[in-house]
Amino acid sequence: MASANGEPRKAVAVDAGAKERNRKRLRRIEGQVRGLQKMVDDDRYCADILTQIASVHEALRAVGRELMRNHLKHCATAAIRQGQSEAEGMYDELVEMVYRTAR
Amino acid sequence: MASANGEPRKAVAVDAGAKERNRKRLRRIEGQVRGLQKMVDDDRYCADILTQIASVHEALRAVGRELMRNHLKHCATAAIRQGQSEAEGMYDELVEMVYRTAR
Amino acid sequence: MASANGEPRKAVAVDAGAKERNRKRLRRIEGQVRGLQKMVDDDRYCADILTQIASVHEALRAVGRELMRNHLKHCATAAIRQGQSEAEGMYDELVEMVYRTAR
Amino acid sequence: MASANGEPRKAVAVDAGAKERNRKRLRRIEGQVRGLQKMVDDDRYCADILTQIASVHEALRAVGRELMRNHLKHCATAAIRQGQSEAEGMYDELVEMVYRTAR
Repeated sequence: MASANGEPRKAVAVDAGAKERNRKRLRRIEGQVRGLQKMVDDDRYCADILTQIASVHEALRAVGRELMRNHLKHCATAAIRQGQSEAEGMYDELVEMVYRTAR
Repeated sequence: MASANGEPRKAVAVDAGAKERNRKRLRRIEGQVRGLQKMVDDDRYCADILTQIASVHEALRAVGRELMRNHLKHCATAAIRQGQSEAEGMYDELVEMVYRTAR
Repeated sequence: MASANGEPRKAVAVDAGAKERNRKRLRRIEGQVRGLQKMVDDDRYCADILTQIASVHEALRAVGRELMRNHLKHCATAAIRQGQSEAEGMYDELVEMVYRTAR
Repeated sequence: MASANGEPRKAVAVDAGAKERNRKRLRRIEGQVRGLQKMVDDDRYCADILTQIASVHEALRAVGRELMRNHLKHCATAAIRQGQSEAEGMYDELVEMVYRTAR
């Protein structure tokens, strides 16, 4: 999604620790996905591939949790402190986001 | 997991079409994960990254569905036709697999 | 869903133990849902109600696992042993069922 | 969970409309759970029961969304406006809650 001026939207702020942890997680996830490709190439047992897929889902959820916390701390808090209508918009966005992404 | 002789377990059979579709999906997923790394590097808006993560989850589930179908068609069917005790072991493995991986 | 003659479809067979466990689980779930109503009536803290909802989800999944196992053991096995076209229909139904219900 | 004085914790506030919608949803869910008991009693086809279970999960998630929105609007906002340490505690509680309950 883009902001009004066509630029991609930016976070209000990102904690350095959170950012570094997520970069590490995503590099590891990239490796896991390449591992999955090799398992498929090798006709590995489907249940073993599914176990590996479950672990990628889990790793992605860890990235999501970190982002969600950062989002609450910086973006949501900024909106909530700003005023009633900004806050209302943020509640809707959060609920929508939670139920769409936290599975 | 390894089979009795220490080799990684293999699928009883893999349909060529299913294998090719999964290779394509996984290459696309690898690209999406690299895209996620760039979004994190650029401090993109958390909700936008979470949306992208949701789409990787969805793409992984499509790989899982394809594997699950192949597993039922070849591995599970072979076990179920083999005899009662092989079938019982397969039911347990399937239920366990489904509730661990299909989220 | 109804079968061809308009009657609700029946299971090929249901293990007595599985059936009894599920009846107990569902009675307990009914009690939990009444407890939820009371929590809502009493304006209880939202996070505490959400915790209780998570526990109903978990209890429902236990019913689902039991049914899934029984389904594999009786209905799916019958179809798979019957012939190729019955088996193919069953694979599709199972994969669809798993990804729709096992969350 | 109980508050410091041993009483169950209460919501900071609950919107009347949200409360009424959730009471209606929970009464309907109670009926669905009784319907599930009858399906189990009648040895109904497992896949049909699983479909009905999926619909109870969905209905519970609607209750959860409503509660989550109310929680953000009243309880979380109160904590976030109160000060840094209350806000930090609320972020942790929210992230935990989301990933435990929103599935």
